Amino acid sequence: MAATPPPPPPAVALEQLSSNKMFGGRNIRFRHQSATLGCPMTFSIYLPPSPASNLPVLYWLSGLTCTDENFIIKSGAQRAAAAHGIALVAPDTSPRGLNIEGESDSYDFGVGAGFYLNATNEKWKNWRMYDYVVKELPKVLSDNFEQLNTSQASIFGHSMGGHGALTIYLKNTDKYKSVSAFAPIVNPISCPWGQKAFSNYLGSTKSDWEEYDATCLIKKCSNVSTPILIDQMFVTTDNTIESPSWIIGTAILTVFYAVDTGDDDKFLAEQLLPSNFEEACKAVGAPLSLRMQPGYDHSYFFIATFVDDHIAHHAQFLKST
Amino acid sequence: MAATPPPPPPAVALEQLSSNKMFGGRNIRFRHQSATLGCPMTFSIYLPPSPASNLPVLYWLSGLTCTDENFIIKSGAQRAAAAHGIALVAPDTSPRGLNIEGESDSYDFGVGAGFYLNATNEKWKNWRMYDYVVKELPKVLSDNFEQLNTSQASIFGHSMGGHGALTIYLKNTDKYKSVSAFAPIVNPISCPWGQKAFSNYLGSTKSDWEEYDATCLIKKCSNVSTPILIDQMFVTTDNTIESPSWIIGTAILTVFYAVDTGDDDKFLAEQLLPSNFEEACKAVGAPLSLRMQPGYDHSYFFIATFVDDHIAHHAQFLKST
Repeated sequence: MAATPPPPPPAVALEQLSSNKMFGGRNIRFRHQSATLGCPMTFSIYLPPSPASNLPVLYWLSGLTCTDENFIIKSGAQRAAAAHGIALVAPDTSPRGLNIEGESDSYDFGVGAGFYLNATNEKWKNWRMYDYVVKELPKVLSDNFEQLNTSQASIFGHSMGGHGALTIYLKNTDKYKSVSAFAPIVNPISCPWGQKAFSNYLGSTKSDWEEYDATCLIKKCSNVSTPILIDQMFVTTDNTIESPSWIIGTAILTVFYAVDTGDDDKFLAEQLLPSNFEEACKAVGAPLSLRMQPGYDHSYFFIATFVDDHIAHHAQFLKST
Repeated sequence: MAATPPPPPPAVALEQLSSNKMFGGRNIRFRHQSATLGCPMTFSIYLPPSPASNLPVLYWLSGLTCTDENFIIKSGAQRAAAAHGIALVAPDTSPRGLNIEGESDSYDFGVGAGFYLNATNEKWKNWRMYDYVVKELPKVLSDNFEQLNTSQASIFGHSMGGHGALTIYLKNTDKYKSVSAFAPIVNPISCPWGQKAFSNYLGSTKSDWEEYDATCLIKKCSNVSTPILIDQMFVTTDNTIESPSWIIGTAILTVFYAVDTGDDDKFLAEQLLPSNFEEACKAVGAPLSLRMQPGYDHSYFFIATFVDDHIAHHAQFLKST
């Protein structure tokens, strides 16, 4: 018996890089040529167990230095996504391979640090991660995965990706059902990471920056009725000695303090600024669940701990209609 | 008020490399000088939420090329370990930094490939991972972590580490309450990975090899009453098309087949040989739960999918007495 002829290739050519079964579904990684960014881009998708159709989509935006793979490998989110019947989609964090001068000089700007905005500075004109995530990627998905319902979408992310999720949601409450974030940069115009990125990508006109600042955006949003969930890690001096039996001699005690009062504490006070966002939400009556999580750091161990709660949060609002 | 003087340092000096809160407990990574191996060794421990004492210990042995970190970062096992109140301990897979000629020439021998045995070949005399895991590491733990009950211990692992877990258990049923494995090498004397490692570490006398072969060992064990749990991934031609909607044009279909009928299939047929172990268990009446898991591959995505079942399995037998 002759084989059935294969279907015609789709509009956007996707090159599959890997496929791994997990929790009955599959992690699949793809590369495609991005028209928006002018370079090849990778993204990862987790498809929950088949048979399935009309699957809602939950976008994950990663933080500085990440690719599309960190979340897929480290978060353990697939377990809850399989249980709830939600597809997870993780894009990369910036264009790559364009060889713009200085694009790889620092961890917090350029490659791996797209900040989910559309750059207006001519030098960084390819840095249009906002359009890529909001417009191109959903089209690529709907063109290629008939089991997805891309009109049922929510978005979440971590750190720079939490900033991305919040700003993209607040600018497109018609397109996304819900938003949540882990330790997001909520007020980039007031922190060093944001100021460095925005001044380079957007130029010196600070009113332009406000279009990509969650704390500024929420003040103009009167239509946010879905609760925003944020988990914020923070270090306490207490948490270094919360289990005295972990302290093993003086040398170790010293290391404990050095580890735990380091960068993560600085991130909160200097870069993340959750209280600025909390105050802005209060001022406009936007519902916010800001959960402070003592003793956690900025790593994926923190994300893995609470990701089930986030997926359950989104599942409430992603029920297909 | 003057601070209380610190306690005296413990017998074995542990250098803490990192500490990250997860699921209410902590992943902590340590380095120490191993007397058994003659080099510094790292291990990772997950301590479930405090307050806790008399914690049982579940050892994880990793596969070829891994360090102590892969399991901690990728398995997601901490969620179930926290729920069951079990400490997880993951050692490295070989001595490192000894600069033995040829130790890093291949992925399946030498560094990252200790095979959890005591080498008798003079050249590899430091490769004594069996003694390190069975004797030195438990002593390091009991000397340094008063909340652990190292006499309540079980052991599991993946691939080469599944071989390690099975052989260590079968040689020490008095020391470990239970064993399980993911895609273990169960009959190394009959597969290329095992033959390469054993001939180099143990010399040419094949009867010596049988001391580290689970299929040979189980035949001599009349006292195994605790069920052995094994999850074995395998690729079927079916699983490449189990969800037709994943197939996106002909080019992708080809890639699917290329990915899915590749190395993982070979591992099963040439290296892992689960049916040899199954037959040996049947012959001696040893209880074995061998679960064939279609469509999964040899990666940590497979482990993450079923690790909760394994921890629940061990929890049954690790109840402190």
